[in-house]
Amino acid sequence: MFLNRLENVYKHMELEGLNQAIISDSNAIFYLYGTFLHVGERMIALYLRRGEQPILVLNDLFSFEDSDTRVVYYNDKDFGPDKLLPYISHHEALGIDKSFPSRFLISLMDLHAASAYKTCKAVDYARFVKDELEQKLMIESSHINDLCMEDFTNALRIGMSELEMQEECYRIYKKHGIDRVSFTPIVAFKATAADPHHEPDSKTILEDGDMVLFDVGGVYKNYCSDMTRVFFTKKPTAFEEKIYNLVRKANEEAIKGVKPGVKLSDIDLIARNIISNAGYGKYFTHRLGHFIGIEDHDFGDVSSSSEIIAKEGMIFSIEPGIYIKDKIGVRIEDLVMVTKDGVEVLNEFSKDITILNLC
Amino acid sequence: MFLNRLENVYKHMELEGLNQAIISDSNAIFYLYGTFLHVGERMIALYLRRGEQPILVLNDLFSFEDSDTRVVYYNDKDFGPDKLLPYISHHEALGIDKSFPSRFLISLMDLHAASAYKTCKAVDYARFVKDELEQKLMIESSHINDLCMEDFTNALRIGMSELEMQEECYRIYKKHGIDRVSFTPIVAFKATAADPHHEPDSKTILEDGDMVLFDVGGVYKNYCSDMTRVFFTKKPTAFEEKIYNLVRKANEEAIKGVKPGVKLSDIDLIARNIISNAGYGKYFTHRLGHFIGIEDHDFGDVSSSSEIIAKEGMIFSIEPGIYIKDKIGVRIEDLVMVTKDGVEVLNEFSKDITILNLC
Repeated sequence: MFLNRLENVYKHMELEGLNQAIISDSNAIFYLYGTFLHVGERMIALYLRRGEQPILVLNDLFSFEDSDTRVVYYNDKDFGPDKLLPYISHHEALGIDKSFPSRFLISLMDLHAASAYKTCKAVDYARFVKDELEQKLMIESSHINDLCMEDFTNALRIGMSELEMQEECYRIYKKHGIDRVSFTPIVAFKATAADPHHEPDSKTILEDGDMVLFDVGGVYKNYCSDMTRVFFTKKPTAFEEKIYNLVRKANEEAIKGVKPGVKLSDIDLIARNIISNAGYGKYFTHRLGHFIGIEDHDFGDVSSSSEIIAKEGMIFSIEPGIYIKDKIGVRIEDLVMVTKDGVEVLNEFSKDITILNLC
Repeated sequence: MFLNRLENVYKHMELEGLNQAIISDSNAIFYLYGTFLHVGERMIALYLRRGEQPILVLNDLFSFEDSDTRVVYYNDKDFGPDKLLPYISHHEALGIDKSFPSRFLISLMDLHAASAYKTCKAVDYARFVKDELEQKLMIESSHINDLCMEDFTNALRIGMSELEMQEECYRIYKKHGIDRVSFTPIVAFKATAADPHHEPDSKTILEDGDMVLFDVGGVYKNYCSDMTRVFFTKKPTAFEEKIYNLVRKANEEAIKGVKPGVKLSDIDLIARNIISNAGYGKYFTHRLGHFIGIEDHDFGDVSSSSEIIAKEGMIFSIEPGIYIKDKIGVRIEDLVMVTKDGVEVLNEFSKDITILNLC
């Protein structure tokens, strides 16, 4: 068990006013143990209470050993929440991590397991700030993503479909030792990029003159990368160039604003103002960014409603975009890490206007 | 919207004593609409109340249209549960489907959204019985799995690792038009099969004389297959043959017992008794089977504690096994469908002892 991370979790539980909590999210378990336990629909619950040994309640189809933890097994004939009940202090509030399935929570409530139930974000808050090992892996993960982006542009061919290019992406990640992607690679030719969550299709064929958007990330040693770039296949029109440079400016100015102590909502505002002042505010339809680490979307975002204050070691995306239906879609995304006195951009891939020479 | 499926869900809500419920599970949404809405960490909630139009509360990053449904959008600045609140009848109990994340449920409780909160399994119960379209897809899905199993045995080579064979499985599924697997294919050489959830590794190399276990399934038009077979690479020893035939008998006798009206716990018992009476009861460490359909593990199981009564149209696995650590692991699994007066086995792949001639 990473005891320093556990200590951090206890600190955040204290700030939340919680003496006890249940952690069940597989990514949270990975964060604490460095091991994934994929239990499907079966219950897994790590019971935490400072000063006591952590208790992991687990189906006996899975095996797990950790010298700092007491593992309590149940089997398929048992009902998980029953096995958890004896360890919970019934006269105190119980923290429940964000994705514990409602059926188990409702069972615990029916069993009067605790005096109250509160969402416990202690692990999520702990994960906001990446420790040294995590920072190292995130930097390396984004470095590999830079290399793959270069290969993606080289694999583009006139006449291929988005879906074919997506398959190339998987192949290229694999070549770079990446077996798992952070999320299904987004490949968009032409105006399909105007849908920020576009799913590559077999109908959309790359033609000379198209714009190409890649929003891609791979998982390196369980840590995610995520980057978006847009390329041209001929000299951009004045309009395309204007939109591209506007998004780029929003991306770069927002990044410049990142340093410890800054509110992330203010970072969102920097990018949003640039785009709004140019008259395109209504086409920037999403938050500026999201936290990232073990998950592509770690808890926490960079948005107008975010109350998070930048702190050394935080890593999140900066990804402004302009989406005009049937016309154009541009998004430029980097991962950035808050440093002691500023920011480090984890992606080094160029943001200059790039015209690809395709065959 | 599949209105017949919705009607079924309402019937089960009534049996649960619920006038209103929230459905959020992406597979439940697929069941009702035939469309997957993957919203990640964002809230999605389908509010159901018989006699009123279903209301789908959805983040506006996603778009969805259905003539039977009112779609209510919220954006990243809104808090999902706030948007849902006005539609809930506050003086009645509210059903919550099984995997609604606890953070949203706790928020609804804090907002006093309803008088009580109950786990709503109405969609899960409705999904127990596959309708005509689903049965057709399940039959076809298992048929393709049979064909793939044949190709897997042909791809085996002495000297390859489990991981290499697993990659072959992906390739072969793809060749058969299957882009997504029901679950990570389990390939086990030698005694690694004694772990029912063994993860194929690169260390375990196929040698002449090994036993080989495949537990594999693919997703065909969103419906899952799942089958386990064990093969020999030389004449089995008397012990291997005994264990194999015992598991096979448990599989076949349990299947013979399936017909409408039978308790699934009794089906589990048939298989368990056969293995126990031969002295290997303690090595059959898991339930006999699980429901399957849109998910590899649909809700519901075939176990000693199952209270489900077999009904025409139900589809589940029958998969007894014997696992003796460091020695042997055998599991034989078929998918079966309850028919009007008996059972149809969806897998036709032979269960005879098969000795493969490998190079």
